[in-house]
Amino acid sequence: MASFGMVELIGRKRDGEELSPGELGWIVEQYTADSMPDYQMSSFLMAVVLNGMTAAELGSWTQAMLHSGEVVNLDHLAAPRIDKHSTGGVGDKVSIPLAPLVAACGVAVPMISGRGLGWTGGTLDKLETIPGFRTALDPSEFVRIVERHGLVMAGQSETMVPADRRIYALRDVSGTVPSIHLISSSIMSKKLAEGIDALILDVKVGSGAFMKDVKQARILAETMVGIGASHGTEVVALLTDMNQPLGRAVGNANEVRESIDVLRGGGPSDVVEITYRLAEEMLLTGGIASDRADARARLTEAIDSGAALQKFRDVIIAQGGNAAVLDDVSLLPAAANEHVVVAPEAGHITQVDALVVGVASVRLGAGRQTKDDVIDPAVGFELLAKRGARVAPGDPLVRIAYNRQQQLESALELLTSAWVIGDEAPGEIPLVLGEVR
Amino acid sequence: MASFGMVELIGRKRDGEELSPGELGWIVEQYTADSMPDYQMSSFLMAVVLNGMTAAELGSWTQAMLHSGEVVNLDHLAAPRIDKHSTGGVGDKVSIPLAPLVAACGVAVPMISGRGLGWTGGTLDKLETIPGFRTALDPSEFVRIVERHGLVMAGQSETMVPADRRIYALRDVSGTVPSIHLISSSIMSKKLAEGIDALILDVKVGSGAFMKDVKQARILAETMVGIGASHGTEVVALLTDMNQPLGRAVGNANEVRESIDVLRGGGPSDVVEITYRLAEEMLLTGGIASDRADARARLTEAIDSGAALQKFRDVIIAQGGNAAVLDDVSLLPAAANEHVVVAPEAGHITQVDALVVGVASVRLGAGRQTKDDVIDPAVGFELLAKRGARVAPGDPLVRIAYNRQQQLESALELLTSAWVIGDEAPGEIPLVLGEVR
Repeated sequence: MASFGMVELIGRKRDGEELSPGELGWIVEQYTADSMPDYQMSSFLMAVVLNGMTAAELGSWTQAMLHSGEVVNLDHLAAPRIDKHSTGGVGDKVSIPLAPLVAACGVAVPMISGRGLGWTGGTLDKLETIPGFRTALDPSEFVRIVERHGLVMAGQSETMVPADRRIYALRDVSGTVPSIHLISSSIMSKKLAEGIDALILDVKVGSGAFMKDVKQARILAETMVGIGASHGTEVVALLTDMNQPLGRAVGNANEVRESIDVLRGGGPSDVVEITYRLAEEMLLTGGIASDRADARARLTEAIDSGAALQKFRDVIIAQGGNAAVLDDVSLLPAAANEHVVVAPEAGHITQVDALVVGVASVRLGAGRQTKDDVIDPAVGFELLAKRGARVAPGDPLVRIAYNRQQQLESALELLTSAWVIGDEAPGEIPLVLGEVR
Repeated sequence: MASFGMVELIGRKRDGEELSPGELGWIVEQYTADSMPDYQMSSFLMAVVLNGMTAAELGSWTQAMLHSGEVVNLDHLAAPRIDKHSTGGVGDKVSIPLAPLVAACGVAVPMISGRGLGWTGGTLDKLETIPGFRTALDPSEFVRIVERHGLVMAGQSETMVPADRRIYALRDVSGTVPSIHLISSSIMSKKLAEGIDALILDVKVGSGAFMKDVKQARILAETMVGIGASHGTEVVALLTDMNQPLGRAVGNANEVRESIDVLRGGGPSDVVEITYRLAEEMLLTGGIASDRADARARLTEAIDSGAALQKFRDVIIAQGGNAAVLDDVSLLPAAANEHVVVAPEAGHITQVDALVVGVASVRLGAGRQTKDDVIDPAVGFELLAKRGARVAPGDPLVRIAYNRQQQLESALELLTSAWVIGDEAPGEIPLVLGEVR
């Protein structure tokens, strides 16, 4: 590979010039090989944060990261290989019912998920509340399970996308995290390394999301759709509301319980609706359904017939978990104590702030402030009154499951401020705020 | 001192917020004490390059650098303490005649200079062509010489402004050099550490200067005047032309020869004029002259009486040099060979590109490409035809003094392209293009 002078490349990015695929590839390669000092990469990243990247640069940068390690190859599968990614929210357990549901309809889902950090939860943490469930799979095992079941749900292996891991760690300590371009290329490099044909994105918008408004979320979605296009991978993004938490359960084991409810045909309507909307996109993109009505019919059938639940059962078993939890949710971790917060006054719930609930859930022990924090899988919130509900004084707002008094107190300090009770009913916010394809 | 989180401070600078004096002081202190990783400082510096600093931030940042090491205290001197700084050009030897001239008029000049790098020369390299002349003085010797003679001309001691040295070294390898704010604070921290009451700046403008146009040069000048004001130090800046080299001599020993000519009442008119204009500002700022005419009269008297030359003689002796060079310039290093470039055609010289001459002088061996290069003090150019001259074919343009054939060939490749000969006489460019005070 050609050799370049990093100081000159930093200078060109600083001065707003476009770097070539070879130059960007060289930067990623050198840094991943430990041949470039951190202080050069961090000043380069800050120049990217402030000056951005062109679409061509983003494509090259993502390609270079994607090819920095092992890339899963699933070309031999007959089924369309499609994954879903959410940018993260509070109470967003949709991956868990969604993946078995679409796999039961014939989509191969090689799903690689992450852990929760900050106020947003992570799919891995939730899945690991199922006793025995292993999310650390080596690439050959990952491929074997998706070959056999059309579904696998794991964490990222150490051999995949090492550049992203290294660069992300540096961004975290050098003040270079908040860049739509760097965020997009980080997500897309990991997803494209899964060997997928298409990706459905759930871009969360609102107080509990990284993107606080639709405009920003649309830019993020367009950026990721563009990166997908430059890689020849179809990406469809739905922009969905995250001003209040999704569903009723916020925590880990309790979100798995809610997911099982959905796979059994129940569950809160917002979780069900988002799951179906994303699943429809997956069936349509994969060419499995001819239109939206056909997609919806296939999904309903997979739920009603028990095929979706069975798919989840197969994968839990394949990944070493105790599938009996599907029949007896009491096998999932449960907290020792409960506390119910009630409405102090009568009125309409005009807001249940997702950010406040998310931060309170971290304080409760359900999430992490830093990567090294240990979570308590059993604790969580059950939201009993959400936006639009009418309450009388003393009506329950939220049930808190906790193990230690200190968890409860720490969470309560914040949690009650999430509910805003007003005189008038709030206007409805649609669940799906937009789409980019 | 308070403790801050560097990632948060980087983020605030990235997002365009203003940092407090305490925060900026902490950053400089931590970095100088080796308590902050380079990758945090470099991403912070890139954010400063791209977002800039407010006037208040610049003042605090400069203060923090200035106080990172030893600060010279000359408060006990009765004379006004004033230095001059040039942003660097080609053939700019003005400091050498200027400092003894104003010292002879009663200004105390504690001058700390640098070495040449790239196409611009450095005062230290020139002074060191005087046999025995020592520019490495410890702070006590520095103070003793200026106490005794009202003048000292030295390099920066290791104990002064260590923060600037460290930060500059990092900027050099992290692509964060070209920032008017960082350049200004670097210069001003070093100058203010000299213990001066006022500073006269010569901001060079044109092809042979860092600032290519008056607008940029004015911004640099205003920035440094602002930093001076925030420190309570008067700064006056003249913007002067550097489209062609200053004077006839470009090199090291030959620039000292030209400087001696000026102190003897001779020398090229442009060098004399810039020297007098800057010297006038120093006498006026120091309260020594009542007006410009008075200043000019005092300066002329110091030259005519030999007082200025005597002052240079005293300082050469005080700093260990052989002052006999003032009476016999053949004691300065001289090159073994000469080559004269002649005009290929008749016409008016419309341009002698200072940048081209400067780069050619580096190739000749008179300057450095990197800090570790060794210069040849004897080599140089004598410009025999400058802008506005009318030449016939065969008329001499430049005499090249060289030691090795390779020096000559390497310089010649570039040098001749510096002269542009046209049919019409060029418009006059004034020497002083503006002032900021």
